[in-house]
Amino acid sequence: MTPRRRTTGRVPSEFALIKRYFAPLAAKAPLAFGLEDDAAIVRVAKTADIVVTKDAILAGVHFLENDPPDKIAQKLLRVNLSDLAAKGATPLAYLMSTALPSDMRESWLAAFARGLAKDQRSFGISLIGGDTVSTPGPLTLSVTMMGTLPRGAMRRRVGAKPGDRIFVTGTLGDAYFGLRLLRGKSFSWLGPRLKRTLIDRYHVPRPRVRFGVSLGRLATSAIDVSDGLMADLEHIAKASRVGAVVSVEKIPLSVAARAIVRRDAGELARLAVHGDDYEILFTVPASRIGAVGRLARAAKTRVTEIGHIVRGMGVVLADRDGGRIPLPQRGFTHF
Amino acid sequence: MTPRRRTTGRVPSEFALIKRYFAPLAAKAPLAFGLEDDAAIVRVAKTADIVVTKDAILAGVHFLENDPPDKIAQKLLRVNLSDLAAKGATPLAYLMSTALPSDMRESWLAAFARGLAKDQRSFGISLIGGDTVSTPGPLTLSVTMMGTLPRGAMRRRVGAKPGDRIFVTGTLGDAYFGLRLLRGKSFSWLGPRLKRTLIDRYHVPRPRVRFGVSLGRLATSAIDVSDGLMADLEHIAKASRVGAVVSVEKIPLSVAARAIVRRDAGELARLAVHGDDYEILFTVPASRIGAVGRLARAAKTRVTEIGHIVRGMGVVLADRDGGRIPLPQRGFTHF
Repeated sequence: MTPRRRTTGRVPSEFALIKRYFAPLAAKAPLAFGLEDDAAIVRVAKTADIVVTKDAILAGVHFLENDPPDKIAQKLLRVNLSDLAAKGATPLAYLMSTALPSDMRESWLAAFARGLAKDQRSFGISLIGGDTVSTPGPLTLSVTMMGTLPRGAMRRRVGAKPGDRIFVTGTLGDAYFGLRLLRGKSFSWLGPRLKRTLIDRYHVPRPRVRFGVSLGRLATSAIDVSDGLMADLEHIAKASRVGAVVSVEKIPLSVAARAIVRRDAGELARLAVHGDDYEILFTVPASRIGAVGRLARAAKTRVTEIGHIVRGMGVVLADRDGGRIPLPQRGFTHF
Repeated sequence: MTPRRRTTGRVPSEFALIKRYFAPLAAKAPLAFGLEDDAAIVRVAKTADIVVTKDAILAGVHFLENDPPDKIAQKLLRVNLSDLAAKGATPLAYLMSTALPSDMRESWLAAFARGLAKDQRSFGISLIGGDTVSTPGPLTLSVTMMGTLPRGAMRRRVGAKPGDRIFVTGTLGDAYFGLRLLRGKSFSWLGPRLKRTLIDRYHVPRPRVRFGVSLGRLATSAIDVSDGLMADLEHIAKASRVGAVVSVEKIPLSVAARAIVRRDAGELARLAVHGDDYEILFTVPASRIGAVGRLARAAKTRVTEIGHIVRGMGVVLADRDGGRIPLPQRGFTHF
């Protein structure tokens, strides 16, 4: 990991900052050489594939300027871990590029590094490289996350077959409602504890890594819900050249989300088109749905069957009577 | 590769842009799945290590706003390829994050993609993933480059021993003089052709991949010259816990750089502390220097012995009589 100097002018403090805050994050990865070289080595079992994914997040776009720095760090890692979880890979290591505004305070960096350290422990990963630059623009964070799985075992978007059942982990919509709270929506009838759980889901996704690995080759296709349930289901459907039907009343909701939907049933369709859920959406042959339940219990992960794959094209959100619910425009947000 | 949507608002055009300009860059990498999934697979020989490095470049910092987009693309790849070359790795594949200003024109992207495609052919690499976001800040480009080498064969900064000879590939200072030309320095006595070669060296580094691979385990340490000859030599010296002496008159110069230095001998010390050379700086036991020449001829790469490693600490730029030349402040640039 090297600080990238400006074309003119030195930024000597970057060396010190990396040493102080980032080098300790690589201490347990001997092949990262303490971030003191220009490259790291990745070495895996001979029968393994490496799965690699890269996602960037920007202040004001993917997180809010004043979000707590430790939670921004966790979100940065977790949006990438969520991709690995959907693919079925066990997280291994990551590289990180940080473009820091010049007025960035050291206390911010210290808290940011604490968030990284916390999630490194939670997910068994290590920083192995990257770089740090100054930017006149917004804080920009980019992570390349690497994981491993048995050769040829990566789950993809393509593979869903007509008749397959559609499952999703956890609950949906919490991050969407959390973001609306942060943007000023009151949801005044919700207690402070429920509001906090929603905001927390927005700040800190919960990638289903353990369940994702255990799911192995059982799923015929999978994706993580980042763009929104219906958009990500459409990604699966298009790649697999099939259609899909989701029963709106089967969408799994938290206690808080259920309280919101009870007041305004229109919120159900809205949460189905907004994202940041970072749950795994996957398809399984009808004959294997019993195995899904067993895996879910073993991984202590809530898993819900929400629909099925059909012939043809297009994704449909259906009401109790099978009627098609029009999907609201994403971005049209009721605060 | 996925376009990262904004928290609210769609950026549907990003999907189209990726498909049009970036997906063709992954066409020859079957395990990149046409960039239509959320991750790629990296698979190497069972006796290989993967070397991974990540460098970002920013408009206005590492390149100039109006630099030709195809050359920005080449610089982005080549600063990362240069790290691999120093390590001795054969380039394999890369992931790329692009944070694009919203006023970015499609013609810019088309030219940028052409530059990537050109260097993919030159270096035998392929895009395998990444993401695209919009930014209100400057154009920010980040690449994670992966290469392979035999297990345990990666060259590092650490390893130089007293008595080792110091070598550098190519010529130094060209990019530094090229940048000064771009910033308005006239060097009026230089002909237009020589000026163009200097500017071209600034825009498009020439990573010494072929020579870097062939050097194998002959070098005891290596680094690419990105921060400047003396700074990067200091990285080797510090990591190896040794000192180093460079003879200023041995620094290899191009015809154009020699013409500049002839007018102002002070330029020699300046070019030794400025960077962007992207040559390989390496150390070799005195008993093996014959082999270096043979490898250089085979790889058709100019290689020059410029100094030697000593006991103690610190790096010294020495004149013809062995006197220490004071190093100018970097950033103090005479236009």
